[in-house]
Amino acid sequence: MNVAMTDSHFELRPIARVESPLTDLAAAPMQAYEDAPEAWLVFDPDVVDGLDGLQPGDRVVVITWLDRAARDVLRVHPRDDPNNPIAGVFNTRSPARPNPIGLHPTEILEIDGPRVLVAELEAINGTPVVDLKPMLRRQ
Amino acid sequence: MNVAMTDSHFELRPIARVESPLTDLAAAPMQAYEDAPEAWLVFDPDVVDGLDGLQPGDRVVVITWLDRAARDVLRVHPRDDPNNPIAGVFNTRSPARPNPIGLHPTEILEIDGPRVLVAELEAINGTPVVDLKPMLRRQ
Repeated sequence: MNVAMTDSHFELRPIARVESPLTDLAAAPMQAYEDAPEAWLVFDPDVVDGLDGLQPGDRVVVITWLDRAARDVLRVHPRDDPNNPIAGVFNTRSPARPNPIGLHPTEILEIDGPRVLVAELEAINGTPVVDLKPMLRRQ
Repeated sequence: MNVAMTDSHFELRPIARVESPLTDLAAAPMQAYEDAPEAWLVFDPDVVDGLDGLQPGDRVVVITWLDRAARDVLRVHPRDDPNNPIAGVFNTRSPARPNPIGLHPTEILEIDGPRVLVAELEAINGTPVVDLKPMLRRQ
């Protein structure tokens, strides 16, 4: 099974890009609730029909591909703080991990055609978005 | 920007596989809270260091790649029910979407080396796992 696992892979395609005043990775907040700014998600015209029915006020999870992150790291000091004991990446929210997927719970503030404004997004300008899902009430 | 978006893609690699009594896609529950069974996540030995520090009782989000899902669908009847008005896939939890990423909030019940038992997973046997993250308290 191991051989089959490492040989296989899946192709992830960006559906949108983040348009944000955050441009400096080092200065970006680590979590959305740490003073992250509003940001626009600019959708590819090919997938804009997938937005049907979404409205301002909806709680959503934005899923990004953190394309600057290291993929060969399995242990980190959480929050890049050497005082935090080292932990496996699957036990942290570090962007460094085999598949650098970012999960960003947030709220839709405005929709203008292929452009969706969300509150509190800690991803930097240009980050690829790979999915958008409504929050479940039970989540 | 559109050309650059559709031309680029990212390579997602499985880090684990789901081992579950659910084998029939049609019979699988649509959400974890709808009587989904416990399931084992069997990690690739190459990434097992990433599990360091995880413990039974931890709330986590399992991220899967729903490899049987249609990727060219942008509008669906939610929950496959024709009585539900059609909606954009980004406004639903349908597996059908451009990037069929599954988010599964659950709890770790047991860890045995590269094998992690979780409660309530609605993914079927053999589903690839692409990431595992701890729940944030604020999520």
